[in-house]
Amino acid sequence: VSRLDLNADVGESFGRWRLGDDEALLGVVTSANVACGFHAGDPLTLRRTCAAATARQVRIGAQVGYRDLAGFGRRFIDVAPDDLAADVLYQLGALDAFARVAGGRVRYVKPHGALYNAVVRHEAQAAAIADAVRAYDPDLSILGLPGSALLSAAEAHGLRTVAECFADRAYRSDGSLVPRIEAGAVIADVDTVVARAVRMAVAHEVVAEDGAIVAVAAESICVHGDTPRAAEIAVAIRTALDEAGVTVVAFAD
Amino acid sequence: VSRLDLNADVGESFGRWRLGDDEALLGVVTSANVACGFHAGDPLTLRRTCAAATARQVRIGAQVGYRDLAGFGRRFIDVAPDDLAADVLYQLGALDAFARVAGGRVRYVKPHGALYNAVVRHEAQAAAIADAVRAYDPDLSILGLPGSALLSAAEAHGLRTVAECFADRAYRSDGSLVPRIEAGAVIADVDTVVARAVRMAVAHEVVAEDGAIVAVAAESICVHGDTPRAAEIAVAIRTALDEAGVTVVAFAD
Amino acid sequence: VSRLDLNADVGESFGRWRLGDDEALLGVVTSANVACGFHAGDPLTLRRTCAAATARQVRIGAQVGYRDLAGFGRRFIDVAPDDLAADVLYQLGALDAFARVAGGRVRYVKPHGALYNAVVRHEAQAAAIADAVRAYDPDLSILGLPGSALLSAAEAHGLRTVAECFADRAYRSDGSLVPRIEAGAVIADVDTVVARAVRMAVAHEVVAEDGAIVAVAAESICVHGDTPRAAEIAVAIRTALDEAGVTVVAFAD
Amino acid sequence: VSRLDLNADVGESFGRWRLGDDEALLGVVTSANVACGFHAGDPLTLRRTCAAATARQVRIGAQVGYRDLAGFGRRFIDVAPDDLAADVLYQLGALDAFARVAGGRVRYVKPHGALYNAVVRHEAQAAAIADAVRAYDPDLSILGLPGSALLSAAEAHGLRTVAECFADRAYRSDGSLVPRIEAGAVIADVDTVVARAVRMAVAHEVVAEDGAIVAVAAESICVHGDTPRAAEIAVAIRTALDEAGVTVVAFAD
Repeated sequence: VSRLDLNADVGESFGRWRLGDDEALLGVVTSANVACGFHAGDPLTLRRTCAAATARQVRIGAQVGYRDLAGFGRRFIDVAPDDLAADVLYQLGALDAFARVAGGRVRYVKPHGALYNAVVRHEAQAAAIADAVRAYDPDLSILGLPGSALLSAAEAHGLRTVAECFADRAYRSDGSLVPRIEAGAVIADVDTVVARAVRMAVAHEVVAEDGAIVAVAAESICVHGDTPRAAEIAVAIRTALDEAGVTVVAFAD
Repeated sequence: VSRLDLNADVGESFGRWRLGDDEALLGVVTSANVACGFHAGDPLTLRRTCAAATARQVRIGAQVGYRDLAGFGRRFIDVAPDDLAADVLYQLGALDAFARVAGGRVRYVKPHGALYNAVVRHEAQAAAIADAVRAYDPDLSILGLPGSALLSAAEAHGLRTVAECFADRAYRSDGSLVPRIEAGAVIADVDTVVARAVRMAVAHEVVAEDGAIVAVAAESICVHGDTPRAAEIAVAIRTALDEAGVTVVAFAD
Repeated sequence: VSRLDLNADVGESFGRWRLGDDEALLGVVTSANVACGFHAGDPLTLRRTCAAATARQVRIGAQVGYRDLAGFGRRFIDVAPDDLAADVLYQLGALDAFARVAGGRVRYVKPHGALYNAVVRHEAQAAAIADAVRAYDPDLSILGLPGSALLSAAEAHGLRTVAECFADRAYRSDGSLVPRIEAGAVIADVDTVVARAVRMAVAHEVVAEDGAIVAVAAESICVHGDTPRAAEIAVAIRTALDEAGVTVVAFAD
Repeated sequence: VSRLDLNADVGESFGRWRLGDDEALLGVVTSANVACGFHAGDPLTLRRTCAAATARQVRIGAQVGYRDLAGFGRRFIDVAPDDLAADVLYQLGALDAFARVAGGRVRYVKPHGALYNAVVRHEAQAAAIADAVRAYDPDLSILGLPGSALLSAAEAHGLRTVAECFADRAYRSDGSLVPRIEAGAVIADVDTVVARAVRMAVAHEVVAEDGAIVAVAAESICVHGDTPRAAEIAVAIRTALDEAGVTVVAFAD
């Protein structure tokens, strides 16, 4: 039987500004990447999000990001590793407070936005994240892109790594993602996205942009949280996976 | 034998801006009120401060404040109780991450600046702090002003309360502090401050501004951290207390 | 012939977070209260908003607020007058840069949120605003609540004052607004709001909550910008005012 | 007769945190690069700094930076050009408000920290700055590194460019600066720094690290503001330049 975790970004509102349909997403996914306040997520939103996730038995992950509310964490910042490690610890501890008062705890870490993209190759920032996570709790997992510097650093630090795939992103024949700035990088058609998700889950493969069939070895599939139709797409993927006999279950205990 | 805890504010630097002689203060005090990032304290400073405190066996307290870097937390903000409770949890968890990776943990909470002053009387904000602390860890103590709404709320929430006194502040005959805006509110002469500290510790009393002798029942004495001579005064107080046979020891285990 | 200005809040998005239908509002109102970055409004949003306002010949006002993104400027902050005056100058100059590069300029100042409410009675903060505005440009107007400390301070500083009324707020028989926390303070029914707006414009009066008819002497009527139906209500009011023969025109040249 | 402008960074305090001896520096330099609030400089500090500069007839420049208080603007941020141009306009307008109420105005723009370093080569960010400056006021000058992308962009936008040199930095034989991370990049000995300043001013040359004599064509010489001895060094340079018959005068009218 195939097993797959379904993860999405939540908790990305800030004060008066609301973003994402967290309520709907938490009814569908098995792992919630909760923002931690540096790029999004005011404390009360984070508290409520952790309570809602715990109530639905959705696993809580710390979606750590650069300190950049104005840029929503989507701009690379050349943070020194010592500062980045401290920034990650700060965010991790803050979110864990909300997870714990809700009766749960943070189970994994997934970098957000530009930090996620940076640590595909930026070894110093990747190591800083892995250092911080191991120092905080060596039982935490790190969720990231297969082949990234982050997952390598996590392994080197003895942390469990969880690879994820994207049903709505075009792949190259070498298994990497087509960068967002290229045409066709993001797949908008819901039926296509759903079909790709099922094939990834059942056959562990995806059709690359050049038609090649590429192996996909992922324990989790990502649904982006802040697009208008994110919840709708997540529901469609979840339904199709259930119907295809895939066991949709959290990767973390 | 008299026993007294000696507490001071530390960790109040922010990025390029340095403030206070933390190294010297941590060599003298028994409890360190470490800033938590909302009014002061960047993450790397907090990590280093928690490591230094733990290495010297100084107890770590969370010096929670309003979200106000520009005002250093010294301006009252009319935060709703739900938001304040979440703000306190966020800061508490963040600081505890640094305390834990240093091998210690946060032992108590002391509000900073305008929040400290507000919760002398502001019952809703006082209750929000007590709620947050109990939710996070009911074994934490709350350090504050005797007779304050905060200590009342803490008691009502079943938390241990620790009253503090101030050797460099003038008292009224009813035991309250002379407000800072009044002349003579702060005592600058070191010898006088030291003598008052010893009398508070040994005889549990202080001479009020009108000459009356007022009882002081405090488990801790506060040394302010960000004045130029803070470390010097702290050393003088510590030395005098030691010589007077007072056991200077942390109130927390 | 009756004349009335129609003002609304715009430019209140921040980075990834969008708020309000500025495009629609700028097609209806004659004066735009543009946020200035302290409680809302990232620089690129402000630049685009000033360009759109200028293109439509809508007058630009500086909607100055407390430095409080997390609270959207809706929480009173006990800022010292010197700091508040500097905060107002900073915001005013920043917004004016965008107004000027768009070919216009800031014509008036209207405080936002908790600052608006504070300066109904807080004389020191009211004077700080008036000081800053006069120092920047004595030809600027101040838009505010009739009878407020702000308009008194503005008059005392020789500034032109512009009183505003609210079609969707309940009034007391003394002409003051029913506080938002009371039931019935905000009128939701669009037809009622429109009818009140027309009566305010044509007959200069409003029916108070106790049935009394109260005189309303206002040069501008406010439409709130960040409610879901703000643009729709603004269009309805504008249409009704036009049909009633009211000249809807900016108060500023 | 040789002429040279002497510039330094000032206004870099933030709230409770003080930095630099602005009073002393403003008594020596002819141009003041005043922070604008994004990487340093609270509004009241900026107001006072502009007033002090104007009183001493020191020219005011806008020291624009990345939005990064935690990093003091010393970390590269991959800001999109549209956002950066808006950020520069925002800072420029804000500072100009203080310059104007003090009776002066902003005369030039000099990027700070990581932004200064980025626009040595980053053409998109350099063009964004030049775009913003020209849009605000085409009579403003841009102060920067000779040969930088910033000065090229400024020229292409029809702006006056002003090249600066550094008496305390080692040069390569191609005229570029030795990067700060290399040993010997910064010259600490005051006498050496002073002698280099005089040679730069009088002979328009400097001895590179390999002993070569390199031509220096600069209208201004920079004294860094936030080092402990900055004011002392600035005084020594100013005195030596005066004695050498160099006319120390602002480049801006």
